Amino acid sequence: MGRLKILNSPTIRRMPSYLHKLLRMRFEGRTHVSSLELAEYMNIEWIVVRRDIALTGIKGQRRVGYEINELIEYIRDYIGWTNPMTATLIGAGALGTAILGYDDFARYGLQIESVFDCDSNKIGRELRGHEIYDVATIRTRLKANPPKIGILCVSNSTAQLVADQLIALGIKFIWNFASICLKVPDDVIVQREVLAGGLAMLCVKIKSRESETPLGLEE
Amino acid sequence: MGRLKILNSPTIRRMPSYLHKLLRMRFEGRTHVSSLELAEYMNIEWIVVRRDIALTGIKGQRRVGYEINELIEYIRDYIGWTNPMTATLIGAGALGTAILGYDDFARYGLQIESVFDCDSNKIGRELRGHEIYDVATIRTRLKANPPKIGILCVSNSTAQLVADQLIALGIKFIWNFASICLKVPDDVIVQREVLAGGLAMLCVKIKSRESETPLGLEE
Repeated sequence: MGRLKILNSPTIRRMPSYLHKLLRMRFEGRTHVSSLELAEYMNIEWIVVRRDIALTGIKGQRRVGYEINELIEYIRDYIGWTNPMTATLIGAGALGTAILGYDDFARYGLQIESVFDCDSNKIGRELRGHEIYDVATIRTRLKANPPKIGILCVSNSTAQLVADQLIALGIKFIWNFASICLKVPDDVIVQREVLAGGLAMLCVKIKSRESETPLGLEE
Repeated sequence: MGRLKILNSPTIRRMPSYLHKLLRMRFEGRTHVSSLELAEYMNIEWIVVRRDIALTGIKGQRRVGYEINELIEYIRDYIGWTNPMTATLIGAGALGTAILGYDDFARYGLQIESVFDCDSNKIGRELRGHEIYDVATIRTRLKANPPKIGILCVSNSTAQLVADQLIALGIKFIWNFASICLKVPDDVIVQREVLAGGLAMLCVKIKSRESETPLGLEE
């Protein structure tokens, strides 16, 4: 019996940043990297980087550091970014547009296959290579082959309604950018993205700086 | 001498969600809330909510729970959302537009006073009540009265250049949505927002579900 795996959010949230840097280094012809170099790049403590990387299961070699190709694969495997993940995006507003345009997502295996909106001014128009479909057609368009992930970039007032429709289609994973918490059955997993969470982090750091209370190592 | 304050990111990141719900409840005429109700709303363990709220320093009362007005003030004080914070937004693309349109930010005290972009098709146009200024005029426009926070929604290739300009104006706090890590002097604080971090969280949860490895309490 395996040990209960602890969801270590700060570590997991840092993984794409390591990956972004490592892919860049590989592109530049580099083959090895030290945890110290990654720590300097990320501007975090060296010991945090060491611990993060150790969680992926890779073994570093003294003096030469980590083999970049190998570390990329360990990180991808740790996050589960080894296979393509299909997704539908509901909400073609500014945030939905930003998500569609985020190049790294495709590189990480996220395949946004369809885009829906309820705004008649948007329906039928093209957005970054996708035709925007009427949100009323979600069921008919997706029922034969529902995607794995539903990405919700809709208003707070419609988020629950749209989530219910996705769940009815058998979609089990929802990435929710609305500010409300969704009510979902136990077998559905919601990852809620709170832009204000980053602002809260920044403001705690500002408050700490201005009150001259030093902050400890991020846990 | 005070204890070293530990930066507890998952707790801090949850605070805006509590606040959003509490403000909603107050608007609906509610006066008290229990940690259990907040836990059900957030779909997290009750003990996590208890611990989060305890960190703000508020004392709950048995049976009646927390006084909503009081809890709102304790959370605002914990995050440092008690005073207005001025900001400038650099980058009027999809993500910048989304940030400008996020109503909660104004409610939390963030005042975006100016918007800049380098795209001549955007400069001079209006975006959600702001005229888009030429990024080349940052210095002349902001030097007399620089805002507290610089919000970077620019491309990876220009993020460092723009950050250097903001820092030269005396701005000490940067909220960076670009995928790169910025090099900044020690007295500048950067909060980096990584959209892919949320995707990584979701994918770790998917992987855990599909391999039937239960995840532990979020730390």
